[in-house]
Amino acid sequence: MAGPVRASEEGLIARYFAPLAGPGADGLRDDAATLTPAPGHDLVLTADAVVAGIHYFPDDPPASIARKALGVNLSDIAAKGAVPRGFLLTLALPDDWTEEWLADFSAGLGAAAAEAGCPLLGGDTVRSGGPALIGVSMLGEVPSGAIVRRHTARIGDRICVTGTIGDAALGLRLRLEPEAPWATALDPALRAVLADRYLHPRPRLAAASAIRRYATASMDVSDGLAGDLAKMLGAGRTARIDLPVVPLSEAVRRACAAEPGLFATALTGGDDYEILCTVAPEAFEALRAEVEAAGIKLTAIGTVTAGEGPPRFETADGGVRVFAAGAFSHF
Amino acid sequence: MAGPVRASEEGLIARYFAPLAGPGADGLRDDAATLTPAPGHDLVLTADAVVAGIHYFPDDPPASIARKALGVNLSDIAAKGAVPRGFLLTLALPDDWTEEWLADFSAGLGAAAAEAGCPLLGGDTVRSGGPALIGVSMLGEVPSGAIVRRHTARIGDRICVTGTIGDAALGLRLRLEPEAPWATALDPALRAVLADRYLHPRPRLAAASAIRRYATASMDVSDGLAGDLAKMLGAGRTARIDLPVVPLSEAVRRACAAEPGLFATALTGGDDYEILCTVAPEAFEALRAEVEAAGIKLTAIGTVTAGEGPPRFETADGGVRVFAAGAFSHF
Repeated sequence: MAGPVRASEEGLIARYFAPLAGPGADGLRDDAATLTPAPGHDLVLTADAVVAGIHYFPDDPPASIARKALGVNLSDIAAKGAVPRGFLLTLALPDDWTEEWLADFSAGLGAAAAEAGCPLLGGDTVRSGGPALIGVSMLGEVPSGAIVRRHTARIGDRICVTGTIGDAALGLRLRLEPEAPWATALDPALRAVLADRYLHPRPRLAAASAIRRYATASMDVSDGLAGDLAKMLGAGRTARIDLPVVPLSEAVRRACAAEPGLFATALTGGDDYEILCTVAPEAFEALRAEVEAAGIKLTAIGTVTAGEGPPRFETADGGVRVFAAGAFSHF
Repeated sequence: MAGPVRASEEGLIARYFAPLAGPGADGLRDDAATLTPAPGHDLVLTADAVVAGIHYFPDDPPASIARKALGVNLSDIAAKGAVPRGFLLTLALPDDWTEEWLADFSAGLGAAAAEAGCPLLGGDTVRSGGPALIGVSMLGEVPSGAIVRRHTARIGDRICVTGTIGDAALGLRLRLEPEAPWATALDPALRAVLADRYLHPRPRLAAASAIRRYATASMDVSDGLAGDLAKMLGAGRTARIDLPVVPLSEAVRRACAAEPGLFATALTGGDDYEILCTVAPEAFEALRAEVEAAGIKLTAIGTVTAGEGPPRFETADGGVRVFAAGAFSHF
C-alpha cells in the first residue's frame, strides 16, 4: 500500500526538521527522544491537532499554520501553569504538498518553537490521503502536584480572563464575509488586528507562573468564552458574569457597534486562546498585578456561584443573557 | 469553519475514551495530563501515525486498527529498551464515522493498552476531511541515560533480530492478491498466520529489558529488514548478513518455495515490528538467553563490518545479494 522510498521521509526530516531538534532528540535520527523533568517537577502533556479546511484555511501562509499548530498547544500548557519543554509533531501531508510549502512551514515552526523555548523532540510524517493535518503533542513542566486543573473552581471565586475576547472569532467572520457592511465599516488597521488574532494565537506563556501560584482553576478559551466557562463549572457550580466588563478590543467593540449580532459571536466563537481562570477574591489583586507585570491584561468578569445551569451573563440594564448552546466546536 | 457542538467531542470522550484513562489524566476531563518518570529515569518519547488506505485497510476491524496504531509505537518503545508509561491519541475521523466503529475501536484500544500497561493520557479528536488518521504519541521510561540508540553499533558487533522476518509483508501481499498461485498453495492455517502478522504487530516489550542491558544499538524493523539495517549503520560501517540464517516462519518459507521472488519482499517489505539490534560478540549468548527466557526468539544474522555501502547479504552458495533500494516507505 506504499511505494518504494523517494528522496523521502528521512531526507525531509534531515533538511527541514532536524534543525529544530532539541536536546534528547538525537538530531531526529532515531525513533525516539528522551526527556526528563527537572527534579521535583511533573511533566504536563497535551495534544491538539489542526486540519486544513477545518481549523485553518488551506491557503493560509504555511508559517502561520505552523504557528497556530504550536500555539494552540502552548496555550493549554500555559493555562495549566506549566512551562513548555518540547513537542512531537505528526505531519500528515496532502498528495499535492510541495517542498516550498514545507520549507515555509518548518521555518515558521522553528521560529515559534524557539520563541516559546519549546524544541522539536520527534514525530512522524505521513501522507494524509486528504487535507493536511498537523498534530502536536506537547510536554511542559510544573513543580510536582502544581498543575492547575479545570474543574477545581470554588464557589465565591472571581472569574478572570486574560487579554480580550472575540477577536479571533470576528477575524474568522471577516475572512468569510470580507464585504459585509460591518467589515467594510472597520478601519483597515482594526481589520488587520482581527485577521491577525485569528491567524496567530498568542499563547499566554508569560502568565503561567502567576496562574500556577494563584489560580484555583484554569483552562484556555479555545471554543468560545461562554461554552468554555460552562465546561469549567458544573457539579453544583455556575457563574454570574458582568457582561459589560468582558474585555473587548477596540476592533471588536466597533464591529459590534456596527452589527450588534456579532457580540454573541465574540462570546461564543472559538480560537481566543486566552486563559480563563478562577481565583479566591483575596488573591485576585496579586494575580492581576503579576499577570499585568508580565505584559498581559487580566480582567475579573464575574463570580462562581452555587447552582446548576449555564452561566448568567448580566447586562448593564439588569437583564440576563444565556448563551446556552454557545459552545463552539472544531470537531 | 465548524458548526455548533453535537452531542459531540466531550460526549465521545466521556463514553469511549475516559474508561481508558490512566493516573494523571484526570479522567480526560482536562486539557492536559501529568506524568512523572520514576526517580532516576528518563522518559522516552515517540510518535507514529497510521492512515486508512496507507497503513491499514479502511475495512480492517476497528479493534485491529487500534491495536496496530498502538503496536507500532510500543514497538519503538521496546526497541529503545524502555517500558511504556502512557500515550496521547490524535484521532482524526472521516465524515462517515459511526459510533459502532468508534465503540469497537476504543474497545480494541483499551484492550491493547491494558496488555501493554500503557494507559491513555489525553489527546484530541478532530474531523480529518479525508481518510481516518490515528496518531499516537507514546511515553516510555528507561533508567537515566540508558536509552539504546539506533546509530551506536560497533564494528565487530553481532547483528540480531527477534522473531521472524517477512510475515507481515507477505500478509499484505496475500491481502492484495489472495488468488495468486503461491497464496492458494499455502495451507489455510499458514495464510492465517501471515494475515494476522500484518494486521496485529506484536511489539517485543518482553525483550526490552535485555536489549537495554546488552545491546549496543537497537531499532524496530518497520520498513523492511534490508532498509532498516542500512539505516542503522552508515558512517564507515556496513554489515555482512548470513542470508540462510535470517529467521523465517514456516509460512514465509513455504510461500518463498512456491514463489521465489517473495524472498525479496520478505526482506524489504514493511511492518515486521521485530527488534533489530547489535551486541558485542561476547555478550550475545547472555542477550539471547534472556530474550528467549522472555519467550521471544533471537537470531544472530550477521556482523557489523568496516566499510561503506549497503549491507552484503551472503547466500548459501557464496554469492552476495544487495537490497540497495530496498527500504520500504509508508510515506
